[in-house]
Amino acid sequence: MDQEQLFEQILKKRSFLCVGLDTDKLKIPEHLFKNADPVFSFNKEIIDVTAPFAIAYKPNLAFYESLGWQGWQSLEKTVEYVKLKYPEIFLIADAKRGDIGNTSQLYARAFFGHMGFDAVTVAPYMGEDSVKPFMTYPDKWVIILALTSNNCAKDFQFVKDEKGGDLLFEKVLKTSKGWGTSGNTMYVVGATKAEKLIDIRRLVPDHFLLVPGVGAQGGSLAEVAKYGMNKRCGLLVNSSRGIIYASSGIDFAEKAGAAAHQIQKEMDKLLGGYGI
Amino acid sequence: MDQEQLFEQILKKRSFLCVGLDTDKLKIPEHLFKNADPVFSFNKEIIDVTAPFAIAYKPNLAFYESLGWQGWQSLEKTVEYVKLKYPEIFLIADAKRGDIGNTSQLYARAFFGHMGFDAVTVAPYMGEDSVKPFMTYPDKWVIILALTSNNCAKDFQFVKDEKGGDLLFEKVLKTSKGWGTSGNTMYVVGATKAEKLIDIRRLVPDHFLLVPGVGAQGGSLAEVAKYGMNKRCGLLVNSSRGIIYASSGIDFAEKAGAAAHQIQKEMDKLLGGYGI
Repeated sequence: MDQEQLFEQILKKRSFLCVGLDTDKLKIPEHLFKNADPVFSFNKEIIDVTAPFAIAYKPNLAFYESLGWQGWQSLEKTVEYVKLKYPEIFLIADAKRGDIGNTSQLYARAFFGHMGFDAVTVAPYMGEDSVKPFMTYPDKWVIILALTSNNCAKDFQFVKDEKGGDLLFEKVLKTSKGWGTSGNTMYVVGATKAEKLIDIRRLVPDHFLLVPGVGAQGGSLAEVAKYGMNKRCGLLVNSSRGIIYASSGIDFAEKAGAAAHQIQKEMDKLLGGYGI
Repeated sequence: MDQEQLFEQILKKRSFLCVGLDTDKLKIPEHLFKNADPVFSFNKEIIDVTAPFAIAYKPNLAFYESLGWQGWQSLEKTVEYVKLKYPEIFLIADAKRGDIGNTSQLYARAFFGHMGFDAVTVAPYMGEDSVKPFMTYPDKWVIILALTSNNCAKDFQFVKDEKGGDLLFEKVLKTSKGWGTSGNTMYVVGATKAEKLIDIRRLVPDHFLLVPGVGAQGGSLAEVAKYGMNKRCGLLVNSSRGIIYASSGIDFAEKAGAAAHQIQKEMDKLLGGYGI
């Protein structure tokens, strides 16, 4: 999916919502365990009710890997389901990978080749040759961790470079934006540090930002839009727990749909407010 | 496995060799494809011939993930096989994970709980709360990326901190050694930067270092030992391609065993030379 198609989806659905499919077997409603693959059953219902309000899904790999190969199977079924039924939806593997070049190439093969994700999140610590292999697939995206939403992000992301005075996350933005284009690179910027979006937008005015941390982690959607939106929206705001665990009962899907719709309505207003 | 047990294995086998099980389906000898799971068959034969000379195995996750859930199944079978037949061997998941705390907890559950690895490699970019969840399992290890073996490691790992003048990888060492102990934390230091081991040993004199990059990537074993060995060895040197692809024919296992034996003999001499 290219940048233009992604923007079209935002306009069509009046939403820049990404639903985080962080499906924890310990939190799935009990009645789903009568099915052969409760993780997939849960995802399928969540997807069907949230698809009208979301432009992206982002399964975090950790949740699936914690179940071993069966978890990977549930993930693959989920991806196939979205691609078949909702081909317009952008699929992000939140995997935070990164390795030496020939190994990153295999991760790219896993997520883009084998599974058909549109994007994968990547940690920048190992540098350019660990990220570039993800940029060799046409219409696929690499989403580089810049400023993450967790408290300890400051441990290293705020290290100030003696040369030039950039903080590490700024250095990551400045350096890595030269590796690709705003048509194949996005950045992770946590909503819990929304005011930093002002500086970040100066460095990468045209790139899409994937913003986790709204909701359970405490970030504010209005602030993210205020500081982070560009003329073509340029935001994918993720919500996981606030949507998928809106209820733990038989009505989990209905409540998840309502929670997603609520966010979409707020997003519609915000888009309008910024003339989109 | 604790630090003492690991050192005992080094003394017993006169080796500090870690065999990288980077099993690429495209490089497996043709005759193995008559088996139901050629990746597992390959690993099993490699393990049986190299176990006398190795103290650790390190499958890199990318190779298995590139095959989807079937790849994960081959990996789980490999881990089970080693744990059953060679319980004294140290098992490292080379996964380079790292995420916000509750998500890292799930990665720890995947690799330590579900699969029973002894250690997992972790990227430090997200800071303390992304690494700590891996330290909550007794006798399990986190192996933090410090200075990696790839060319572009310099992009960010050599950023010099305005405060104190540390390079980023030095800052990672100094900061993260306070999160755990030399009994549950190791560091990845690439053999391609062996001379840097002098400075690294000043910062972490007692920690084990996992050293990739000997062989195919150009690092020298003698230099790694010269600059990196401590009184209790303190090194796990990894070789992947040079062992597991020593031959691509019917004799692949025999040749892999010979290659591992060759390295073990060199390691025996080096240990002796340093009085171990």
